[in-house]
Amino acid sequence: MGEFELIDRYFRRPATRAPLGVGDDCALLAPAPGSHLAVSSDMLVEGRHFLSTVDPARLGHKALAVNLSDLAACGARPLAFTLALALPRADTTWLEGFSRGLFALADAHGCELVGGDTTQGPLNICITVFGEVPPGQALLRGGARAGDDLWVSGTLGDARLALEVFRGRPVPPGGFEAARARMETPTPRVALGLALRGIATAAADVSDGLVGDLGHILTASGAGATIDTSVALQTIAESNHFTMGNGNFDASFALECVLAGGDDYELVFTAPPAARDAVRAAGQAADTPVTRIGCIDRAPGLRLIDGAGQPVPRHFAAFDHFA
Amino acid sequence: MGEFELIDRYFRRPATRAPLGVGDDCALLAPAPGSHLAVSSDMLVEGRHFLSTVDPARLGHKALAVNLSDLAACGARPLAFTLALALPRADTTWLEGFSRGLFALADAHGCELVGGDTTQGPLNICITVFGEVPPGQALLRGGARAGDDLWVSGTLGDARLALEVFRGRPVPPGGFEAARARMETPTPRVALGLALRGIATAAADVSDGLVGDLGHILTASGAGATIDTSVALQTIAESNHFTMGNGNFDASFALECVLAGGDDYELVFTAPPAARDAVRAAGQAADTPVTRIGCIDRAPGLRLIDGAGQPVPRHFAAFDHFA
Repeated sequence: MGEFELIDRYFRRPATRAPLGVGDDCALLAPAPGSHLAVSSDMLVEGRHFLSTVDPARLGHKALAVNLSDLAACGARPLAFTLALALPRADTTWLEGFSRGLFALADAHGCELVGGDTTQGPLNICITVFGEVPPGQALLRGGARAGDDLWVSGTLGDARLALEVFRGRPVPPGGFEAARARMETPTPRVALGLALRGIATAAADVSDGLVGDLGHILTASGAGATIDTSVALQTIAESNHFTMGNGNFDASFALECVLAGGDDYELVFTAPPAARDAVRAAGQAADTPVTRIGCIDRAPGLRLIDGAGQPVPRHFAAFDHFA
Repeated sequence: MGEFELIDRYFRRPATRAPLGVGDDCALLAPAPGSHLAVSSDMLVEGRHFLSTVDPARLGHKALAVNLSDLAACGARPLAFTLALALPRADTTWLEGFSRGLFALADAHGCELVGGDTTQGPLNICITVFGEVPPGQALLRGGARAGDDLWVSGTLGDARLALEVFRGRPVPPGGFEAARARMETPTPRVALGLALRGIATAAADVSDGLVGDLGHILTASGAGATIDTSVALQTIAESNHFTMGNGNFDASFALECVLAGGDDYELVFTAPPAARDAVRAAGQAADTPVTRIGCIDRAPGLRLIDGAGQPVPRHFAAFDHFA
């Protein structure tokens, strides 16, 4: 199978919204007049962003999901994406599964593939995604203000738990497949991002770990934050995912996974206390749980406290590809 | 040096045209109201699209040039680009050179870096480029009509010649550095693409070889073509690049390089005979030579003829990453 047959078989579908899709030197997009185009690009490398044994359909889902998650963090509506793919060989089983998972998620979000590139090389998936957002309505990282509440969406920590199991940690007695699915098929919070327009003052998606991604908000906003770890721990999906062989809840490991796990693709965002009802309504409209885990402070830095307001002496680092 | 310091040091520059550049979950573009956004994505893999020994500044130039070439082929005006980069390690010498070459070309075209991704992995460079084009004015592949002239820009064949020298062919007595520069720092024909709006009926850039890229135009247009090889041979930059050790011109090798060399990043395009003066004026306005090498036929397929109109019995295949 040659390069162009590969594209025709697995990746060429008629464009429905774009004026021109796959098959020319460029694709053509027609953003809604006056709208801004939100753009994000993520590159996934085998052995670093995914295990070589992952189901190709799940990988196709994840490759697009991590990009849609960036649109969600900006409050942008998905429009289209390009796919650049380096493959060691043209493996039809892999291509069939990958494209199936990719298009299932793309269709669910009305986000169409309009172009890209295929080449031979070490497995590498680079997607660039495009979304629309009215001028001035994008959720940015720099808008958090002292006194704002600090919120996270959904559940945190399961992706990291699953990774640790692949690295050799014993499978928790409470089950593994649900955690594995969170790692391999994350849910981009697109509907929540849209619902938070005009409500959230700042937002980011949780890809490098909550502490790290919150850190981007704090740096951009020139602010600090306090997290109540007893509340943050409530964002785990199932306490029995974090039990040890003896059946005891491993709170220390769970906190590590929640605060510095990474690969969650939830949203961390801020909003004024007056907007609490609006935030909860946005979560309900988007069918996405939201949890208020702390607040934004004037003093720089991140403080962790327990349920009694006492400092929690733990340090968490964000994931860094070159550290 | 960590991931974010790497981005700050080498790739973060203030956005001047985009409402939001590097540093948030998404970048924001503000295309001119009513315009279409042309999008193209190209992935470059070490050992396949470039030699591991290439000067990093030249590689930075080429990575963007091959993308700008796609905008040129559509007649789009460069606006912005994203860069996703997998690097084996954070090598400051490489990063300094790569970013210097990249930004020099970007600045020359007013095309600003607005976002991207960096990760550890086998060296891989994926750029997605954005350009503006008024609706209905993009140059597409499907507009060639029987009777149209067939044109190419600039010079062909030197990139392939240089590659063959790296593969072991003797250095031609007529010099090598000029050919090497054509391979390593191709010139995207952006100005010509803009000048050909409303004149050319179809266009593509020559990346996989003239015969292959013309083939895309013919397939999309449902047409065939005839190339006068005696004229096509005039598109070589210097006849002494294609001389052998004995000083004789190697016409057979030169024809191979011109028709199926690849990596030229010239434009192949079609236009009605009535537009010959307009095409030549576009070439002059863009300071880019243009050569009329044949014509579009009603009969499918590609015919090669010599200066006397006799068939040339040669077959050329396009470059295919998986063939």
